[in-house]
Amino acid sequence: MAASEQSANKQFGGWNRRYTHDSQVLGCSMTFTVYFPPAAEEGSVPVLYFLSGLTCDDQNFITKAGAQRKASELGIALVSPDTSPRADVPGENDKMEVGSAAGFYLNATEGKWKKNYQMYDYIVKELPSVLKGLKGLQIEKASIMGHSMGGHGALIIGLRNPDKYAAISAFAPISNPSTTPMGSTALAAYLGDDKSAWKQYDATEVAKSYHGPSKKILIDQGTSDNFWKENLKPENFKEAAPKELSVELRHQDGYNHSYFFISTFVEDHVAFHAAQLQ
Amino acid sequence: MAASEQSANKQFGGWNRRYTHDSQVLGCSMTFTVYFPPAAEEGSVPVLYFLSGLTCDDQNFITKAGAQRKASELGIALVSPDTSPRADVPGENDKMEVGSAAGFYLNATEGKWKKNYQMYDYIVKELPSVLKGLKGLQIEKASIMGHSMGGHGALIIGLRNPDKYAAISAFAPISNPSTTPMGSTALAAYLGDDKSAWKQYDATEVAKSYHGPSKKILIDQGTSDNFWKENLKPENFKEAAPKELSVELRHQDGYNHSYFFISTFVEDHVAFHAAQLQ
Repeated sequence: MAASEQSANKQFGGWNRRYTHDSQVLGCSMTFTVYFPPAAEEGSVPVLYFLSGLTCDDQNFITKAGAQRKASELGIALVSPDTSPRADVPGENDKMEVGSAAGFYLNATEGKWKKNYQMYDYIVKELPSVLKGLKGLQIEKASIMGHSMGGHGALIIGLRNPDKYAAISAFAPISNPSTTPMGSTALAAYLGDDKSAWKQYDATEVAKSYHGPSKKILIDQGTSDNFWKENLKPENFKEAAPKELSVELRHQDGYNHSYFFISTFVEDHVAFHAAQLQ
Repeated sequence: MAASEQSANKQFGGWNRRYTHDSQVLGCSMTFTVYFPPAAEEGSVPVLYFLSGLTCDDQNFITKAGAQRKASELGIALVSPDTSPRADVPGENDKMEVGSAAGFYLNATEGKWKKNYQMYDYIVKELPSVLKGLKGLQIEKASIMGHSMGGHGALIIGLRNPDKYAAISAFAPISNPSTTPMGSTALAAYLGDDKSAWKQYDATEVAKSYHGPSKKILIDQGTSDNFWKENLKPENFKEAAPKELSVELRHQDGYNHSYFFISTFVEDHVAFHAAQLQ
């Protein structure tokens, strides 16, 4: 279970440390990266998870988003997991939205995916227990954000575990996957054709039945994002949210789905989580 | 000669625009990226060149360094050229320090390299003339920085053309290539064995004979950089610099040669150039 450090790169006075570990939940070796701010060398700091989107691994956010600058300043650790098991399941590279780098942060129940594709349990249960073995992290003080498929992951995981995550934010999240082409392809593959099983992994459906503590949610959506209208639909999520969920949905003019968009607004998100983690 | 826009990505209120054009000097199609800050939409702004290192193209700096944030704030355009011709010269991929992505910002005089590898003239003459065709840039108000091989490029180009570039800065620059393994391999391949021809492309040698206007130079060097002692030697450059050159060489404890290092200090560099461009 213990994580083994693979590399360390100093940035903004802190350290990006990349680890591998044997995942019991996923049945394979997994890689993740943690940015430790300078404050983690003197005590322990809260943890902000970033769940990445389709085609990504743990490195995209770490190398491109530039979130470390604000995390260093505010004394928050950033945790960037991989986006799927890497378990050599036959056909896992055939579709962009199902299989490798497309774990959709759910527990699969169908066919060949069932054994390894348990990303929901990995993120909610196993990864925090692995992080406990690292120095400088206050695991019980956590918050969660994500991008695209990872925005979906942040919303469903944050809403279904409101006591574990102080706040939720997302960049261009897949917000109502049951109703969209890429989302329904993934949900059908992992969960089967019975759509009642999909609801627990559809943020808009999860929001409708939310009865937890009041929670702040920040969402940024670029208006030049090619996935927006057909595959993301954050407006559906905002409309479905009950009064316990305070959703700020910002439409950012001219921004697309890329890390150029994320880097522009990520400092707002880190500061948002820091305020909720106080 | 005119540049053709290939992609546009909004970031920090401005735009990263990637262009291709037919280079007469290099005899091939070339790609570069410009970050236009918001101020470039209302008038024209100064230009800060960033020359990249070995193995890079125009995208590494644009996607990883995070310099756009400060460039947006200060109203400076960032110009990120490619690091060599892409002309299918036989054997150009055989060595890391010679050939593709290793143009060394010089005009080759030897053998198969002579026809295309004219990066010095490309950066100093042709690229500015291509940039003149784009709106929003004040080409005559320029400054220059770079990393590693590109730090070498910034130093030699800036010092040999002191009226064209307001200031010079570098991250972990190859500062005395005639005396180092990678540098001398490249200089021998491009310029032949007569070392007197190497001096014009060795920043330490160029500094020794500098008699131009006084010039400020900022250099950052990570102390955990594996290339530092054997291949970079910025200390030689600082020691050789005459009184006209005010060299600030900062040793940054624990930083390596990566973009994590660059991103940590790049805002200092952008602000340094902005002050000199006033």
